[in-house]
Amino acid sequence: MKLLRYGPIGSERPACLDAEGQMRDLSGVVADINGESLSPESLARLAALDLTGLPVVEGAPRLGSAIARPGKFLCVGLNYADHAKETGKEPPTEPILFAKASNAICGPNDDVEIPRASEKTDWEVELGIVIGSRAKYVSEAEALDYVAGYTLVNDVSERAFQSERGGQWVKGKSHDTFGPVGPWMVTKDEFDDIQNIDLWLDVDGERRQTGNTKTMIFGVAHLVHYISQFMTLEPGDIIATGTPPGVGLGMKPPTFLRAGQVVTLGADGLGEQRQRMVQA
Amino acid sequence: MKLLRYGPIGSERPACLDAEGQMRDLSGVVADINGESLSPESLARLAALDLTGLPVVEGAPRLGSAIARPGKFLCVGLNYADHAKETGKEPPTEPILFAKASNAICGPNDDVEIPRASEKTDWEVELGIVIGSRAKYVSEAEALDYVAGYTLVNDVSERAFQSERGGQWVKGKSHDTFGPVGPWMVTKDEFDDIQNIDLWLDVDGERRQTGNTKTMIFGVAHLVHYISQFMTLEPGDIIATGTPPGVGLGMKPPTFLRAGQVVTLGADGLGEQRQRMVQA
Repeated sequence: MKLLRYGPIGSERPACLDAEGQMRDLSGVVADINGESLSPESLARLAALDLTGLPVVEGAPRLGSAIARPGKFLCVGLNYADHAKETGKEPPTEPILFAKASNAICGPNDDVEIPRASEKTDWEVELGIVIGSRAKYVSEAEALDYVAGYTLVNDVSERAFQSERGGQWVKGKSHDTFGPVGPWMVTKDEFDDIQNIDLWLDVDGERRQTGNTKTMIFGVAHLVHYISQFMTLEPGDIIATGTPPGVGLGMKPPTFLRAGQVVTLGADGLGEQRQRMVQA
Repeated sequence: MKLLRYGPIGSERPACLDAEGQMRDLSGVVADINGESLSPESLARLAALDLTGLPVVEGAPRLGSAIARPGKFLCVGLNYADHAKETGKEPPTEPILFAKASNAICGPNDDVEIPRASEKTDWEVELGIVIGSRAKYVSEAEALDYVAGYTLVNDVSERAFQSERGGQWVKGKSHDTFGPVGPWMVTKDEFDDIQNIDLWLDVDGERRQTGNTKTMIFGVAHLVHYISQFMTLEPGDIIATGTPPGVGLGMKPPTFLRAGQVVTLGADGLGEQRQRMVQA
């Protein structure tokens, strides 16, 4: 099942795709695509719906973030062996965790702002985990029971803010629009093997990133288990799981985004995003 | 004006203190003490109320966090020159910013959990800034216009999780109950000089921390201005502004919290907190 949100910023409505890929409005069934509607019980109820009875969404409305603003928007750093290598760092021995401001989230095709005084705005295509049930001290064996599904995330990053301004990465990860999420939240039953998903990202039509989740250092189940030892994951929380090689910081010479450029990205089964860069 | 929240976890009600220090229920006036009720317009309306007409809250109910769960719970690191020194680090040249999971927030007198496998759970009394208006790219001169008021925060921290487990501090700052906030959100008009506030913290009745906000490296106005260059602050967001000297990590030898211990803390005009340590 593919769940999504459409409509103007701040007044998005819930929807899903039917068997023909047509958007159907879910406003009469759930209030939003959020922690409440992503519980196992709610997803079972949605999966049992006769979608042909729901209103068709006409036209091509703006898409919002596939998930309503989460309580936590967490990210994992250096989680692909080959990406760790391009940054010149050793692969981590346990997951590197950092936070993105939850209000950095935006629609998958919204304009992305280059912050004022930014010279190093960069791209990062990522698989996003969407939490469906409260997870505290869960084992790796049961970790996937707490996952509702997956989504595509561009973990937009300002490298100077992240690493040259006094320490913690949150500073370079949290600008408005630095978190395009969607187009869909895809329930986990649609994936045979989440550790075998191709990811790609282009800048102005040129391929920059190519990867597959099989080269993740720490897989999805381990990440959910691991994070739940430090904090409680809640329904609707998003975990961006790290990026494969090909970020601007790793290019020779390093190359960053400018206003007017267009970033497109995608992943197997998770759809595509397209963002135009604009100056803040 | 002192605003607060009382009642069982998850169903707190808004209240305020009247001229006699008696709690008055605000449920008929605002839905909660949150971003919406902390706007300048809402605070002006609350300040104009005749509190004697509001229901008295009888007894001594549990207090919730003075603010409903915020969108962002940000913290500033090493922001007191003497605390920076006790950690053995150079004072920062610009604010160190990190994030706490917003669901780490709890009531000022709730039990605090020592996480499983924790050996270095530590205390940090702090002045918390509460945002009242959306702040993006605001100047230092106008920064205080975006502040609703202040509150007391214990930025509970697990030092091994924070610094010995692969990088970013959020891992050691985000366990459930690691963010006692309150007892009150005190509107900014009650302070003549927010940069001259005494802070203290005791463990089992022994004084551990003593400080004053005049030794902050970066003051409140600068912090709000500075953070707003990197991300958008929203009404209800909390910024814990760093801790004065006397944390467990700085003791010789370093000394950390154990289940059964009691931490008490307070600050001029901001009230007091009391937490019993329990094992998670």
